[in-house]
Amino acid sequence: MVRYVYPFEEGDGKNKMLLGGKGANLAEMTQFGLNVPPGFTITTEACLAYLEHNRLPQGLLEEVHAAMREVERKSGKTFGSTSDPLLISVRSGSAMSMPGMMDTILNLGLNPETLQGLIAHTGNPRFGYDSWRRFIQLFGKIAMGVSDERFDEAMSAVKKRVGAEQDVDLSAEDLKALADDYLKIIKQETGEEFPLEPYTQLEYAIAAVFRSWMGKRAVDYRRQFKITKDMANGTAVNICTMVFGNMGNDSATGVGFTRNPATGENVTFGEYLVNAQGEDVVAGIRTPQPISRMAEEMPDLHRQLIELRDKLEAHYHEVQDFEFTIERGRLYALQTRNGKMNARAMVVTSVEMEKEGLITREQALLRVNPALLEQLMVPTLVTDGKIAALAQGLPASPGAASGKVVFDADTAEARGKTGEKLILVREETKPEDIHGFFAAQGILTSRGGKTSHAAVVARGMGKPCVSGCDAIHIDVRAKKAQIGAVTLSEGDVITIDGSSGKVYPGRIPTVEAEFFEELKTLLGWADEVARLKVFANADTPRDAERARRFGAKGVGLCRTERMFNDTARLPIVQEMILAETLGERQAALDRLLPIQRSDFIGIFNAMEGLPVTVRLLDPPIHEFLPTASQLEFEIEHLRGLKRALRNMHELPETLKMLDPELHKQYVDSLDNLEANLAEYQNENRFDGLIDRREAMLQKVRALTEVNPMLGHRGVRLGLTHPEIYAMQLRAIVEAAAQCMLDRVDIHVEVMIPQVCTSQELIRVKAQLDAELARIEKMRGLRPQIAFGSMIEVVRACMRAASLAETAEFFSFGTNDLTQATFSFSREDAENKFLPFYQENRILRENPFEVLDLKGVGRLMEMAVRWGRETRPNLKVGICGEQGGQPDSVRFCHAIGLNYVSCSAPRVPIARLAAAQAKLREAEYDPKILL
Amino acid sequence: MVRYVYPFEEGDGKNKMLLGGKGANLAEMTQFGLNVPPGFTITTEACLAYLEHNRLPQGLLEEVHAAMREVERKSGKTFGSTSDPLLISVRSGSAMSMPGMMDTILNLGLNPETLQGLIAHTGNPRFGYDSWRRFIQLFGKIAMGVSDERFDEAMSAVKKRVGAEQDVDLSAEDLKALADDYLKIIKQETGEEFPLEPYTQLEYAIAAVFRSWMGKRAVDYRRQFKITKDMANGTAVNICTMVFGNMGNDSATGVGFTRNPATGENVTFGEYLVNAQGEDVVAGIRTPQPISRMAEEMPDLHRQLIELRDKLEAHYHEVQDFEFTIERGRLYALQTRNGKMNARAMVVTSVEMEKEGLITREQALLRVNPALLEQLMVPTLVTDGKIAALAQGLPASPGAASGKVVFDADTAEARGKTGEKLILVREETKPEDIHGFFAAQGILTSRGGKTSHAAVVARGMGKPCVSGCDAIHIDVRAKKAQIGAVTLSEGDVITIDGSSGKVYPGRIPTVEAEFFEELKTLLGWADEVARLKVFANADTPRDAERARRFGAKGVGLCRTERMFNDTARLPIVQEMILAETLGERQAALDRLLPIQRSDFIGIFNAMEGLPVTVRLLDPPIHEFLPTASQLEFEIEHLRGLKRALRNMHELPETLKMLDPELHKQYVDSLDNLEANLAEYQNENRFDGLIDRREAMLQKVRALTEVNPMLGHRGVRLGLTHPEIYAMQLRAIVEAAAQCMLDRVDIHVEVMIPQVCTSQELIRVKAQLDAELARIEKMRGLRPQIAFGSMIEVVRACMRAASLAETAEFFSFGTNDLTQATFSFSREDAENKFLPFYQENRILRENPFEVLDLKGVGRLMEMAVRWGRETRPNLKVGICGEQGGQPDSVRFCHAIGLNYVSCSAPRVPIARLAAAQAKLREAEYDPKILL
Repeated sequence: MVRYVYPFEEGDGKNKMLLGGKGANLAEMTQFGLNVPPGFTITTEACLAYLEHNRLPQGLLEEVHAAMREVERKSGKTFGSTSDPLLISVRSGSAMSMPGMMDTILNLGLNPETLQGLIAHTGNPRFGYDSWRRFIQLFGKIAMGVSDERFDEAMSAVKKRVGAEQDVDLSAEDLKALADDYLKIIKQETGEEFPLEPYTQLEYAIAAVFRSWMGKRAVDYRRQFKITKDMANGTAVNICTMVFGNMGNDSATGVGFTRNPATGENVTFGEYLVNAQGEDVVAGIRTPQPISRMAEEMPDLHRQLIELRDKLEAHYHEVQDFEFTIERGRLYALQTRNGKMNARAMVVTSVEMEKEGLITREQALLRVNPALLEQLMVPTLVTDGKIAALAQGLPASPGAASGKVVFDADTAEARGKTGEKLILVREETKPEDIHGFFAAQGILTSRGGKTSHAAVVARGMGKPCVSGCDAIHIDVRAKKAQIGAVTLSEGDVITIDGSSGKVYPGRIPTVEAEFFEELKTLLGWADEVARLKVFANADTPRDAERARRFGAKGVGLCRTERMFNDTARLPIVQEMILAETLGERQAALDRLLPIQRSDFIGIFNAMEGLPVTVRLLDPPIHEFLPTASQLEFEIEHLRGLKRALRNMHELPETLKMLDPELHKQYVDSLDNLEANLAEYQNENRFDGLIDRREAMLQKVRALTEVNPMLGHRGVRLGLTHPEIYAMQLRAIVEAAAQCMLDRVDIHVEVMIPQVCTSQELIRVKAQLDAELARIEKMRGLRPQIAFGSMIEVVRACMRAASLAETAEFFSFGTNDLTQATFSFSREDAENKFLPFYQENRILRENPFEVLDLKGVGRLMEMAVRWGRETRPNLKVGICGEQGGQPDSVRFCHAIGLNYVSCSAPRVPIARLAAAQAKLREAEYDPKILL
Repeated sequence: MVRYVYPFEEGDGKNKMLLGGKGANLAEMTQFGLNVPPGFTITTEACLAYLEHNRLPQGLLEEVHAAMREVERKSGKTFGSTSDPLLISVRSGSAMSMPGMMDTILNLGLNPETLQGLIAHTGNPRFGYDSWRRFIQLFGKIAMGVSDERFDEAMSAVKKRVGAEQDVDLSAEDLKALADDYLKIIKQETGEEFPLEPYTQLEYAIAAVFRSWMGKRAVDYRRQFKITKDMANGTAVNICTMVFGNMGNDSATGVGFTRNPATGENVTFGEYLVNAQGEDVVAGIRTPQPISRMAEEMPDLHRQLIELRDKLEAHYHEVQDFEFTIERGRLYALQTRNGKMNARAMVVTSVEMEKEGLITREQALLRVNPALLEQLMVPTLVTDGKIAALAQGLPASPGAASGKVVFDADTAEARGKTGEKLILVREETKPEDIHGFFAAQGILTSRGGKTSHAAVVARGMGKPCVSGCDAIHIDVRAKKAQIGAVTLSEGDVITIDGSSGKVYPGRIPTVEAEFFEELKTLLGWADEVARLKVFANADTPRDAERARRFGAKGVGLCRTERMFNDTARLPIVQEMILAETLGERQAALDRLLPIQRSDFIGIFNAMEGLPVTVRLLDPPIHEFLPTASQLEFEIEHLRGLKRALRNMHELPETLKMLDPELHKQYVDSLDNLEANLAEYQNENRFDGLIDRREAMLQKVRALTEVNPMLGHRGVRLGLTHPEIYAMQLRAIVEAAAQCMLDRVDIHVEVMIPQVCTSQELIRVKAQLDAELARIEKMRGLRPQIAFGSMIEVVRACMRAASLAETAEFFSFGTNDLTQATFSFSREDAENKFLPFYQENRILRENPFEVLDLKGVGRLMEMAVRWGRETRPNLKVGICGEQGGQPDSVRFCHAIGLNYVSCSAPRVPIARLAAAQAKLREAEYDPKILL
């Protein structure tokens, strides 16, 4: 004989398939000693039997009756009693949470007679009649299929009749009359009388819950969320004694957190209302009290509450979010679940619970979602969500910032010097805007994706950026921007949130990031556990210092081209590019050499004792030049100025004759103007400027490529123009030598970008060896410099065994590798079809944010394996943007990488993710690649 | 005791390491019965012993003496005899041919006494003294180290003294005196007397040959060509009896081919001179006779020659290129080697030799290099190499053509209608130039690589194309082009050779391709042997017919976008692209549907009985629009016209007052002009034209991508704009249904480009199924249409197992796959760094021409393996350009592909290569991928 009914004392709290999630939870709470109102669960098997035969299975009602008798015994109340009636709630509950599938029926067991008992007990006729009419409506709808509309009409009619504005304005009498109307409606709609006998009500309710499993809403929901029969099959029914918080001043209702979910502080947190039901909180008539007040107001109940709290944490080893009701001095737990907390609270509670012995150190590390830590690394907006955003762009670099709008980098630099807070607003940014990045608090662009220049540079600097905000129309010359009806002028204040992509008018306060003690403790534990090391991408000494502060154990990617992008240096770089002869190019390189050397010395010093991996020049060289259209505009502009200047000088002679007075004024202002234009007074100088730009324009056109991503860049450029890499290698070697002389402990590594065949590595290695031999001869010392290869070209993965003959380490550049593996140009994809692909689940994730395991990951796994066949101790890392993404970190751990390198703010995320990867490595399934 | 000397009768003809290539060859010829002048070979071991101890090894001279005695016996002459002296040649010869390493010494054994014997025998004193002075000079130089200069001075002095212009003007007496001068020079330079004793001469000569092995020239040569010791170690010395073709009218000298190397005809081919030595041929005093004359002139010798020829072919089973001398009625074979022939001769001789039983069918197939067949598929230039090329571009599409220069497609179309032969000359071509391709005989561009639009379209049409010829500067408006000092105007005739990339002035005759009988036979045999099938890429019914003529067993790639590129269709396609609403787009598609359907019906009919694989739209959509700069130019031009037109109407009023006569003339001509401009008379119409172009310009800018190769194209476009693929699928399905009704035997396959994940396939498959269901409902029949995926994205290789769940076949698009695997944009790479990479051996081959096995090939191998794990009968082919390249065909065979598909002219190459791949499959080493 199958058993269909389990009192909460007997149900198996682990068997959600049989009891549903809610039933299992009620059984578990009851059994570990919480005061849960008596009740029982009817199993999902009973539901399936009902659905199969379209009637309640044999024996079920007998079991229900027996269980009800037990409930009566425990509660001391009697079902159907007219003096102290037992009232119950009836709820559905399957193994998977299916919100909105079915409502709860409360106060089942009410009828005109038992109602009088309820009124007597609460001393509140209005509450009694309100409960009664609500029960009729809910039961009528759920168990008898009458639509809400009819009830709402009746409600409106009553309100109109008595002139009430709101439901709460209705008196007990009004509600009594309404209940009568409701009963008539049910008779009209169904032809049936409303069942007044409590057990009949219960039988109706159970069958209704069972049927709801096959209702359209539930079936659609399961289809939508792909809930299969092995995940949830049938619904259970939970029958629970109603308890009332409105039975007098020794009764109350409330919700609590076992710890503060905003700060993590170890004090019970929450709100309660004395002599009230849950509806009162919702109706907003009375203001709830903080639980801290309870110690004074109701010390005994407060003691019970603390006891409940301690039992919850002792049992669940986790912060709980619970609901309770106090009925006549007795506290009942109604529900509990793991508490949702912000990042800070998660970290604090993890560390404190570990110290309290409530959880192990492993559990402390595993319970914090690493992605949450991003909140802690950047400033966040303090907003109540009521300020409407002006526009929505792409969340390109996290964090929030407010400042005055500026439309060009020069203005940003000028105004920034006076300490003004600024937001640089551009259509898109170029390398020559870099001084504007330094001066501004945040960047907003109207074009470009998450990998646009603006996004990448901002992320590198850790400044907030919203990119591709195409609702903004910028007129640089007028220094205005239009967003819908709003016009922004230079100096207007806006706030951008790079974490959400939103742009707000005015200044919104922000909270700065803080590396608090518990976070340091937790990440310290993480570092002890993790096998995978976490490095940071850093291009300047300042970046390197920051990376160290964030706990990076090295610099995994130092992009030498970033050093080129500096207002002081860019002209030299452009000179190098525009050089017509090797001699001219060498002259420019000779000027760059000391600059790069001193950068390297700075970075090596900042990272003393830790490895620094320097990547030689990577991007196509035309990226260091202005665009053709910008040059065309400048040339046109210069020509206009030249014409204007000539006219200025011609005009006075005519003017002198016509109006001597005006002429004098004009000449005065002209003097002023000329002082400003001093540099350009001589027409020849204009011509020189124009000529230089025209030469540059020609070069820009010659260097333009059809597919720059796949063009003449990286080692290809390094080999065809060997003097560039020679200069960079010399700067690295000389910097390393200088550090050695200064007794700085350095660990320098050089890596080569865009490698596709081992010959490329062999040639650059020869250049490095030549520089090392040179320094040894000149200064008598030879720095140890490891030599490695970026793996960002698919062919490099295929040729890993061969590359590892020359390379001492590999570093996966997963940004480029992802582009090549998918044949997706990131900029084009994110602007054109990738959103469609994600919405339509053609691809589950954006592979530029989350490493694509089945394509890119599989290539990586092969490359690591093949590379180590040649060189077993090959060091392997990843320096793409996914390096700081937790799932990607987990994968990198699984395939045996030595390190991940990411932007500094993501270092803490990666550190925690690396520890979790180690702790969960047994769960890793290599089939994930197939 | 080591043996150092082997008479030709005893040497092992296979042991080139010991005897050198020449010695082994002489031994082999002697032993299989050719009449080779008596002689012997001194081994390379003797050379090594000499070099080690710096003296001739013990016993060598004794062996040489003994061998010389044998030679004397066989020749009936005596070394050093004054009446009938034995003279010998001394030649070096190592295992590897090293041209120019050392010259030959002829007539060794001459001295003033033996010279008289030679004169007596030849009856030619002048020949005697000339031989003598030549011997002194060669011996002096090679064996005694005297430089040529001194001898040349003496020669000049003698010529001056006797007033001779050329060497041949010197008499016997002059030469005698010259020889005496030479002897004095040797004494002066070396302090030694010239050795007159024959055996001393021989000893000197042997040592000199040995030393030459370590001479600078030889050492450099071996380093340059990486000839290691296991390839050749030391040189042998070959001593051979001199024979003389100038001993009278029963003597002669000549060279022959056993078959005609230009036509393959089975007749001995060559030239000879009666009573002459080889020098006479070189000196050009007498004209050699064709060997066919010998039968009449010297029937007995001709018989000997035919005997020699038969022996050669019977022994070598290969056409031979041989040298012979006839001395007093006796024919001597001096040398033989495999004959070099043109493609036609190779094919003809293969088939004939197989029929004669001289070689097997397998040998017949293996001896023709498939790449040679390209010569036979395209017109070739008939040039003696004396016409200098105007410029050198890239050989973008093979074949030669002459025609008048035209600079735009419209002119080409207009002039082509009158039957003029034209060459379309453009900076680069765009889809809207397509009618120019149809009208022109060949295409020449100044920009773009081998995969530029011009190159790809020309190859597809089988028309010659030279691309990227950057020496040409084109001024389209002036209709002029400048190449260095040469100016080409419209109508000037040039010739282009797409096989060499050369551009010539004027018309150079060409020979048309011809599918001759023997070629058909050979390819028929190939088809019987091959496992790999050969398909062709064909985009139109005309292409398909041509493919069939070339022996294609199907169409492996039918590019539907090519059908869009037609002057009549492009405007509709542009309308579709420019459509602002789905309705407008659908209207354009509805007009394209019948056009595509009728194309498909044409192709399916042309390929009846064979498979046709249709690829849905692939390229980014902006490729169907003009470039931004072209539109800007057109807009500017239209505006100018509009202004001009207005001025034309304003001017007359003024003119009327000033000069009524001129006004009348002007109005008359204006009427004419207006008739021409009728279309534009109304300014509003100008505005309409300008507006349309401005709208297009805006769209072009919006569609512009950073990396179009990796952009919004192929299935990505197909999914975001499903109406396009829907139209194409409907056209295919309806065409198939029509063919079924017409009882045409069709085998239609649809394939999807740029696939990276199986969801993409599943979605398009659903579209196809919907169209099939629709036609079934409408017409009661359901065409069988196979559904497959292009594999041209790296991720598709990785996901092959998953894609094969939906795809019934794979087709590797190795053009794109190569770009993605290398991260090389072909257009950028071939214009920028790829030539440098090849010159510097960073990459051995251009991977866009020869499939890169270690990168792309390895990916392909994995994809085939994984795909067939899911679907064992998965059909797999390749449709990239490498599909017709013999090495790539061999690889495709090895990894189990079912077919290769290439352009029609390459089909014969691929057919032969497929057969060879099968015949050589045992030699295939899978390690080639590592």
